[in-house]
This record gives sequence, structure tokens and C-alpha cells, in this order.
Amino acid sequence: MHEFDFIAQWMRPLTQGHADALGLADDAAVMSVPEGMELVLTKDVLHEGVHFVGDEPAGLIAQKALRTNLSDLAAMGAKPYGYLLGLGLPECVDDAWLAAFATGLAQDNATFDVHVLGGDTTRTLSKLSISVTALGLVPRGSAIRRSDARAGDRLYVSGTLGDAAMGLRVAQGQSLGVTYAHHTWLHQRYLVPQPRLALGMQLRGSAHAAMDVSDGLLQDAQHMATASGVAMRIHHAMLPLSEAARAVIALDADAWSYVVAGGDDYELLVSLPADATVPEGLIHIGDVVAGEGVVLLDACGQDITPPRKGYQHF
Amino acid sequence: MHEFDFIAQWMRPLTQGHADALGLADDAAVMSVPEGMELVLTKDVLHEGVHFVGDEPAGLIAQKALRTNLSDLAAMGAKPYGYLLGLGLPECVDDAWLAAFATGLAQDNATFDVHVLGGDTTRTLSKLSISVTALGLVPRGSAIRRSDARAGDRLYVSGTLGDAAMGLRVAQGQSLGVTYAHHTWLHQRYLVPQPRLALGMQLRGSAHAAMDVSDGLLQDAQHMATASGVAMRIHHAMLPLSEAARAVIALDADAWSYVVAGGDDYELLVSLPADATVPEGLIHIGDVVAGEGVVLLDACGQDITPPRKGYQHF
Repeated sequence: MHEFDFIAQWMRPLTQGHADALGLADDAAVMSVPEGMELVLTKDVLHEGVHFVGDEPAGLIAQKALRTNLSDLAAMGAKPYGYLLGLGLPECVDDAWLAAFATGLAQDNATFDVHVLGGDTTRTLSKLSISVTALGLVPRGSAIRRSDARAGDRLYVSGTLGDAAMGLRVAQGQSLGVTYAHHTWLHQRYLVPQPRLALGMQLRGSAHAAMDVSDGLLQDAQHMATASGVAMRIHHAMLPLSEAARAVIALDADAWSYVVAGGDDYELLVSLPADATVPEGLIHIGDVVAGEGVVLLDACGQDITPPRKGYQHF
Repeated sequence: MHEFDFIAQWMRPLTQGHADALGLADDAAVMSVPEGMELVLTKDVLHEGVHFVGDEPAGLIAQKALRTNLSDLAAMGAKPYGYLLGLGLPECVDDAWLAAFATGLAQDNATFDVHVLGGDTTRTLSKLSISVTALGLVPRGSAIRRSDARAGDRLYVSGTLGDAAMGLRVAQGQSLGVTYAHHTWLHQRYLVPQPRLALGMQLRGSAHAAMDVSDGLLQDAQHMATASGVAMRIHHAMLPLSEAARAVIALDADAWSYVVAGGDDYELLVSLPADATVPEGLIHIGDVVAGEGVVLLDACGQDITPPRKGYQHF
């Protein structure tokens, strides 16, 4: 399949007929931002061998690339609008792969009410790379930052932690010693993140700060604490675990490191004032206090912060 | 250098202090579009070994990645605003390379009055890739498309053609038999495109259609003709050649193929009504007529269209 056939057959339908994509026939897209709204822009590039293994079903790779970007929009409280897609395709990618990739995107376009605005596709001498720039909208002034957490706030996460980091081991062919069902569930958490979009929008106006946990809880919390000029105390006993993660940890206590420093969970970390109404789905894990730094405390209040707090991309 | 140091030392300064980048500390950027304006969005990903050789000075690679995107904005008549930058870095890239890359961008930020809004940087197992999403602004409804060329229009280009395709041979270490000065000049045309931004903005309201010539004149003209439902006649004798290209062709008549089917010149192809005032810098190369297809005609009106009309990315 040639470039222009690929665009016509697989990419143009992903514009879902939206006029602003100009049928992918022009040099660029033209978008109107409704009055009173601001545009939220994020860009994540996923690379084979770094962000995914490479042998996953193409549709799931596509969905992961889109959803990690949507997760950033969720963290800002934005409603997703659309995205631009840059594909760097290795020689070995065939028509069936391209079809499955586009089908995965079409499904997520429907799930999240987004469409392709534009993009760029090239055969390369490299491994597969997928560059997504996602656009969202928020009412002017209501985007949630990570820099306004305040002493006295409570700290929450939107779901269980460590699952995706354990799931990566499954993707790499490692056995965690748990049941097949647990393996499959953890693998799924790694493969297809669930961007917390409804929650993010619900948090506008009440959350002091939010971000998504993509590189490890303690490292990401440290970013929020530094940006906000506060300290955070996270309580080990309050961290939410899935049944599968609990089973893994029962066999290997070191697997706790996945929970506090593993990446790819794409749950939201949220700082809410103590008197705020707490939306459904948020789990209290700690507190914001004056000072600096992030500590992990055991049930006796002892500092058990591990040296490794998260993932660095280089 | 680690990811967060790289962002702090080299990327954050490229935001030029613009508030919408949120200091690159958040999950996304937040941008306001002024009332009465529309946003123009484009995304080009440059891959080592495809869009550049790889041994070019890092600052020039950076500028090429930015400028190919700005060229798309120029074609739409948009004023550049800012961009998001996705970097996939091979292991061998060192701190000096990163510094030179960022310095090249800083220079172009000043030249084109743009800034970094956000991005993503990762060490990868692949060759170098640079993904840019550029944003521009146009007054509502004034973006120039490529689909409104009309029979009776005249066809123009904004500069000499074929230089960059010849320059690529120089970059690959090939001798074209011309002087050192001509080699250097052609190489430069390949290395650093000049986006025709002022011209693009000047064409708002008068041009029926515009696009940049990035994949080869005849192929790109064919895209414009197809999108507009017209035919185009391009006159071989009217195509503008640089002194250097003229010297190359004097030694090898086959080098004409670089002019009509070579890529990377990033000049604008413009369709203007016959009675329009023609902005300085536009060179008349042909005409738009009823029908379909693009033909290259010699001085006697004979069809001399070559079989190969441009570059396909896969």
C-alpha cells in the first residue's frame, strides 16, 4: 500500500467527516476554538521497545498511543477534541497491520468522541514510533495545574497502582507466579490505559492540583510537590491494590516497588482541599503538608521511602 | 544528562517565557486563541536516514524539522504561533549534540517569533526522530486551501526548484561536477528550507489555492489539480532555476528531473486569478485549465511529462 492509498483508505475515515481536518487533503488543519474556551495541547511519542514491546496487536498499540495523550488531557480537566498522528513505520509493517492499527483508532474515536485532524506517515529505517498530539478544550481559566497543591490538602489517586508495571513483566514473557486470570488482567492494564476523563472534568473548580501517574507514584508526586512548593506524606497502608497485584506481592514482597515506583498506570494523582466533596473513584492515599519532598510512611509513621522513585526516559 | 535536566536546561528556555507553556511543568499546555482567529495545525515527523542524513550539524537538523512545519503554515497563509516537540533520541546522542540542537531552535524561535509549548523526549532503540506539531493563526475563514484553484488561474512558484534535491546528492557525498561554491549553495538549500511565511500571509484573500512543494513539483501540482477538479499546464521553459542548478543541468541534462520531481524545496505553489496583483517573489510557471491532470509542456507545446513526478514516503 502506498502513502496516498493509506491516507485515503485508513486515515481519512478517522477524521469522522469533521470539516476542520479538511479531508487530510491540505498542508494543515484549521480549527475554531469556541468562545470562552481554551485549548489544551499535549504530545506523547511512543517508541517500540520503550513504551511497548512491539508484538502487541496493532490496534492495542494504537489505542495506547492515543490514550496516554488523553490521560494528559484528563489530568488538566480538559474534554478531548481531536488529535494529530505521526507514524514512523518500519519496513516490516504490512497492510494487515495498518488495517488493525486504524481499526483500533476508529474504536477509540467512538469511545472518546475524538477525531483525527491531521498527521504524517513515513516508512523509516527505525523501529515503530507513534507520535500523537492531542487537543482538548476547557472553559477559560479552569485547566487544572499541578502547581497549586496546598498544605492541608488531601492526596488521592483514581485507581489501583502497580498493575501496569507488573503487566509489563507479563508482556515481556515473565511469570509472576499468579493465576492465568491475574496475569491476563495485569497484562491488560499495561496494554490499554483508561484515561480518567470524566473524573478530570469533574475536578475542575475543586482540585488544587492533578496529574497522571505515568512514571511512578513517588516520582510524579515529587514533581507535583516541587511545582507546588509543598511536601507530601503518602501512607503505604492506604495505597490501593488490585486483587492481582495483591496476589503478586503475596509471593514476592519486593513487588511493592511496582506500586510506588512503577509507571504506566495512568491513574490521576489529585490534591483536594480537606473540605471538598470527593468525587466517586478517588482513593485517599496521603496528605499535603508544608515543607518539601515526598515521603512514604508505614503504619507506625516510619519513613520507608525507597531510593528508586520512578522511571526516567533518559 | 537526564530527562529532567535536559528539560530544565535546554527545553524550558525555548518557551521564551510564554505563559501558555506552563513552564513545561504540567501534563499539557493551555492556549487561548484570540477572538476572530482560527488555529492552523500541522505535524511533520523527520526521521534520520529519510528526511536527513544524520551527520548534519544538530542545530540545522532542528531548524529543518521546525521549518518544514512552518512551511505548511505558510502555505495556509497562517502566522506561526508556537510548536510542540517530540524527540526520539538514539543512545549515541550526547550532551554537546543536545546543546547544539536546542541552540538551533533558539535561533529559529527568534527568527520566526515562535516558542515551544510542550513536548516529549525519550531515549530510544531507534534512529533519531523529530516530531513537530506547529500551530499558527489566521483570521477566521481566511486560511488558503489547495482545493480552490480555478480554470483561468495562473500558476506560480515562490522560488527556484530542484536545488534541494541536488543538495541531497551533495549531502550524500556525491559530486555534481560543479564548483565548490555551487555545491555548498545547493547543500544549504537542502539543509535549511526557507518557509515563505510573509508571502503566505500576503496571499490571503487573493490566492485561490496554495501548497508547499515538498515532494516534487509535478506530484504536488497533481494533488492541487485533483483537489480543485482542474487541470494544469506547466511550461518547462518558465521553471525558475538557480545559477547552481543551471550549472548542474549544463553538465547532465537528466538533472532536470530534480527540478520537476525533486522534493524538499519548500517553495510555495500558488494559483492566482489572472487579474490578481502578483506579490513580489512569485514566478509564473503555468496555467490552470478545465479538465484533469498535470502536463509539462516544452516550448513547442509538446507534452514532455516524465513518468516519475515526485517522492512517495512509502
